[in-house]
Amino acid sequence: MKHFEFKNDKLIVLDQRKLPFEKEYFVCSTYQDVYIAIKDMIIRGAPLIGIVAAYGVVLGFKEIIEKNMDLTKIYEIINYLANSRPTAVNLFWALERMKKIFKEARNLSQSQIYSLLLDEARKIEEEDKNINKKIGENGNTLIKEGANILTHCNAGALATGGYGTALGVIREAHFTGKNIHVYVDETRPYLQGARLTAFELSEDGIPNTVICDNMAGYLMKLGKIDCVIVGADRIALNGDTANKIGTYSLSVLAKHHGIPFYIAAPVSTIDFNIKSGSEIPIEERSEDEIRFFNGKKIVPDESKVFNPAFDVTPAENITAIITEKGVIFPPFEEGILKLKEW
Amino acid sequence: MKHFEFKNDKLIVLDQRKLPFEKEYFVCSTYQDVYIAIKDMIIRGAPLIGIVAAYGVVLGFKEIIEKNMDLTKIYEIINYLANSRPTAVNLFWALERMKKIFKEARNLSQSQIYSLLLDEARKIEEEDKNINKKIGENGNTLIKEGANILTHCNAGALATGGYGTALGVIREAHFTGKNIHVYVDETRPYLQGARLTAFELSEDGIPNTVICDNMAGYLMKLGKIDCVIVGADRIALNGDTANKIGTYSLSVLAKHHGIPFYIAAPVSTIDFNIKSGSEIPIEERSEDEIRFFNGKKIVPDESKVFNPAFDVTPAENITAIITEKGVIFPPFEEGILKLKEW
Repeated sequence: MKHFEFKNDKLIVLDQRKLPFEKEYFVCSTYQDVYIAIKDMIIRGAPLIGIVAAYGVVLGFKEIIEKNMDLTKIYEIINYLANSRPTAVNLFWALERMKKIFKEARNLSQSQIYSLLLDEARKIEEEDKNINKKIGENGNTLIKEGANILTHCNAGALATGGYGTALGVIREAHFTGKNIHVYVDETRPYLQGARLTAFELSEDGIPNTVICDNMAGYLMKLGKIDCVIVGADRIALNGDTANKIGTYSLSVLAKHHGIPFYIAAPVSTIDFNIKSGSEIPIEERSEDEIRFFNGKKIVPDESKVFNPAFDVTPAENITAIITEKGVIFPPFEEGILKLKEW
Repeated sequence: MKHFEFKNDKLIVLDQRKLPFEKEYFVCSTYQDVYIAIKDMIIRGAPLIGIVAAYGVVLGFKEIIEKNMDLTKIYEIINYLANSRPTAVNLFWALERMKKIFKEARNLSQSQIYSLLLDEARKIEEEDKNINKKIGENGNTLIKEGANILTHCNAGALATGGYGTALGVIREAHFTGKNIHVYVDETRPYLQGARLTAFELSEDGIPNTVICDNMAGYLMKLGKIDCVIVGADRIALNGDTANKIGTYSLSVLAKHHGIPFYIAAPVSTIDFNIKSGSEIPIEERSEDEIRFFNGKKIVPDESKVFNPAFDVTPAENITAIITEKGVIFPPFEEGILKLKEW
């Protein structure tokens, strides 16, 4: 099966914490299970978080029916799911879509509402795959034959409904025969690069080399990087972009070396309600993600640990934002506002 | 005992790969053992590599006596030890000192030569401790009250004869009551920061916080870093400095944020024979340092891995070089040439 599936009123997700060497599935029978899957990063990636949360609403509504609760309890469930992670806006975007469906359908029968919610979740999922393919095609116009591309974290099939955002562009470049090679930041502390991106690329036969995050600048200096492509967790109106911690440093390094720096993300990652990145909440995660590695302690107890999960890359460090509706260039606000109208 | 000791014709070194949670010692009875200790990073740190190699020559000479070999075999042994690691110049510097002693003493009795070689190794060790203290005092003039200092890798007591270079400055600032706090890059792949620097600082009661390497830029952007201090493995005449991989990126990030970037190193780290950093050989280490973590595989087999152990920070990114003979500022070549004459 693929990395998630909604079947027989259960959402089954591949446990991404165990990849690539163990394939374990986590079964979400309740919306609380979905909350855990998101919060504990059993699944991750902004678009996928949105899709999974939508199915969480479906499971929540099922429970409302079964336990004969007030239908408006769904608002509580939606709020609960919205609290699973703070930074990726796709979560709130998907939950808003589900809320809208409920509001429009609330006078229908319970089973009708359930069907409409499930349809919407499936639609969010299906749309995302097509969106990614389109992002890939749009982004591919920026990729040169034989390019060495650096990516950070995992903005791949595993982070989305399929195909990927940053990796969608990379896949498209590869499958159109551009003979590319990818440098993959291992991406501490969670190693999404080494474990997930390298795995996805290797499965698709895309040549790739894993490096430690601190090696990227040196590679740029050696002239080994032609462009950087990463995903996004939230994009502000002015183009400021929150993404996995370390993205900001890469953007400064890319700028210093005159290397194009691209963001690839669906329009659902744009937060049209915020003007700049300073309004994006940055999640701090558990110290233990850094203190322990595979259960083995690596940091002395007396030392503190700081573990921000994201950082914000300012618009001025971004060469272009690749969306399913086209590639936008600075000044971003203009292009972003057009996307809203589109 | 301390982290290394020469006693009863054996060099006993603390296995730094196991720190901080296991204290295991590796006993070098032969110069080949010393070679392994350096090559396999049982011990590391440019100044310590020099000291340990000097004791390796002593052990080599002991074997020459015992096996009644030609005394000039010592040159072969010195060359052998010189091949243990390519980047840190202190190794070659210490071996040159030992060679010089041998040359001057070669007409004396075997036991006299042995004594002189042992004296020289002890002298290199003792000098290094005093040098570090002096580096600490000189560097402390640059540290402000309450400073938040970022450091990378381990340029501490464990990397030297004692006290440390970058950590010598930090210790001096702390023990003169400056109320400093240190951010420690965990320093992938070997985690010298998380395992060694955090350990040393915590042992001395110096407040410290461990971060992943990819978080440093974000901290700078947040205004949380007042200066960066790192050690060095080799400094060219123009001030270009080789140090642990990731140092170059930090220097670019520091420059971008207007944060002072300091190198702390003994004069023995200066290679007066090379004009610029482009002449410094950069060691590439085993892929397995990145592929495996505590014996657990983290990178798919199909992916390649690139593991450069060092990078070169260009002089223009360095605010000052702190040595035992004083602090030098740009243009560095002038100051460095004065150090040579000094």
